[in-house]
Amino acid sequence: MRERSSLRLPAGMRDFAPAAAAARRRIAEALLGEFERWGYARVITPAFEYEDVLARGLGASRRDAAIRFVEPGSGEVVALRPDITPQIARFVATHHREERGALRFSYEGSVVRVDARTRTPREVMQAGVELLGLGGALADAELVALAAAALRAVGLPRPTIEIGHLGLAREVLRATGIAPASLPAARARIAKRDRAGLDGILRGATGTDAVKRFAADLALRAGPPAMVAAAARRAPTPAIRAALEQLAAVVAEIERRRIPAELRVDLGEVRGFDYYTGVRLQGFVPGAPDAVLRGGRYDDLLSRYGSARPAVGFAVDIEAVAAALEADAPARARRPQRPAAPRRSRTGKRG
Amino acid sequence: MRERSSLRLPAGMRDFAPAAAAARRRIAEALLGEFERWGYARVITPAFEYEDVLARGLGASRRDAAIRFVEPGSGEVVALRPDITPQIARFVATHHREERGALRFSYEGSVVRVDARTRTPREVMQAGVELLGLGGALADAELVALAAAALRAVGLPRPTIEIGHLGLAREVLRATGIAPASLPAARARIAKRDRAGLDGILRGATGTDAVKRFAADLALRAGPPAMVAAAARRAPTPAIRAALEQLAAVVAEIERRRIPAELRVDLGEVRGFDYYTGVRLQGFVPGAPDAVLRGGRYDDLLSRYGSARPAVGFAVDIEAVAAALEADAPARARRPQRPAAPRRSRTGKRG
Repeated sequence: MRERSSLRLPAGMRDFAPAAAAARRRIAEALLGEFERWGYARVITPAFEYEDVLARGLGASRRDAAIRFVEPGSGEVVALRPDITPQIARFVATHHREERGALRFSYEGSVVRVDARTRTPREVMQAGVELLGLGGALADAELVALAAAALRAVGLPRPTIEIGHLGLAREVLRATGIAPASLPAARARIAKRDRAGLDGILRGATGTDAVKRFAADLALRAGPPAMVAAAARRAPTPAIRAALEQLAAVVAEIERRRIPAELRVDLGEVRGFDYYTGVRLQGFVPGAPDAVLRGGRYDDLLSRYGSARPAVGFAVDIEAVAAALEADAPARARRPQRPAAPRRSRTGKRG
Repeated sequence: MRERSSLRLPAGMRDFAPAAAAARRRIAEALLGEFERWGYARVITPAFEYEDVLARGLGASRRDAAIRFVEPGSGEVVALRPDITPQIARFVATHHREERGALRFSYEGSVVRVDARTRTPREVMQAGVELLGLGGALADAELVALAAAALRAVGLPRPTIEIGHLGLAREVLRATGIAPASLPAARARIAKRDRAGLDGILRGATGTDAVKRFAADLALRAGPPAMVAAAARRAPTPAIRAALEQLAAVVAEIERRRIPAELRVDLGEVRGFDYYTGVRLQGFVPGAPDAVLRGGRYDDLLSRYGSARPAVGFAVDIEAVAAALEADAPARARRPQRPAAPRRSRTGKRG
């Protein structure tokens, strides 16, 4: 161990002095209050669990985001939760195994995540919701509407909500016939909006040129919701059309609800492959470089805990919201609120 | 690792379903609200820290209450906080090193403690306060009054607050001249109210019979506050008299404030020797077998972080309060609230 003359904290850990703590507390309470008004009942889950139980829900790629250690009493390997969603899935599989109606839960707490690149852990304060037992556009739209309401409740009244569909990119890449080994590289090119790089990978694929052109076009496109219907009309395969029609149904339902947010779609959504199965959503606000809210549909997660059912949820990064409120405070005092242009984040992790 | 067919949680970890989570949330909010009304500003500290930094504040005997592990990014040993008070001490030593006035901070969060006997960890939700930079009876009495107000705020309007003084037992045992090696056994006998056992240890001590009789008498006595003045009149040494007079000053100040609690004193207070230096306080309520609130004066703690100043604080065990409210709900509906008779706990750990 290095000598330390100071009382410093480990990287990724921090104290919050009264003003900062109060701001974060206000955000957490505003979120939990809004979740409660929408019928999402708060549950509390523990700080650590058996690593193998948690890992079922995290999946192979996110398992490394958890700090693991041997719990001295039992000698078993436990992990600090890097994400509360798998805990909610385990909770539902344990306490609501036979229940088949829709369940709505919320949570608030801190998680500890190890950054894949730097291996540095970071404590993150989150508040989020999960809607379990309900598939389809109505449930997805409820979450988008709640996302907009939650951000309004914390003082960010005109967010941009970006939605995508993981099944869409999956179907498009499958139709191009690229080798499974090339899939991660293809997804990385799409995430970086790197058309030349994607074309290079597609060149070696077995699909028709028409499908490959459609793929390259589609996977790099993000913009207004009308894009979805336009893309559906040109869909080269039934599976791609089905994914686009699912997304179109969600868009239609959101537009019907007239939520207080600018809606954008990202047809090249590829983040969170290990976790999400359908619609993905992210919330962007002025003053925050990355999404302050992240979530989506994860219809496979509950089956990993032996209690299969559809589910959709999102988490709000309380620190990112606090930073956005601080950064934007002078600007919001000067001018009416305008939605932010979303910027892409490179991570598939939730908020 | 053992095979596990279920999705069970590690021992000491648990989920809280909506009704239980809401009850605990209400308790935490009521406590934080009361602390805020008394001018205690909430701070937030991290879930884990470098073990050697945390251990400075925990002291030798409580260091083992922390779960330690190697943080993978840095390769350094960190520990999950078993107690938030040392973190507040570190926070004050870091951020308020030059400040010499009184500082009032509150906190809320979960800690993880390893039981010394069973080696089982347990996650405990706590909310507490620290008053730093202020010694003397006024500060001690403020904490006792706030303890009563905090328990009233959570719906436990007539607690019993028991106060003691660690310096008193220390001075009494010193005056008896028993060997340092026998001190832990003597303290254990006092904690168990075992007069015969204590007499056996005192028999081998070098002090006068008069001092030993006073010690055996005093150390086993707990009761109404008037006991303090009576004992002070018979004090066999100046140091014992000084400790009793300190305690009497606190009692007088508490009685002047007319706090909504039954006050009791315990002249044989020996718990928390590694941590506390002066007045100890505990809150008992109907329906809880042990104290739901624990604290005291710890004037040496800040100096371990290089920023010496007096300090006093307490922590409320949110789970114990929730259990008391649940256990007592039918009784409280039937009859006017009466104070509970305190029962002794065997641990020196805070709430």
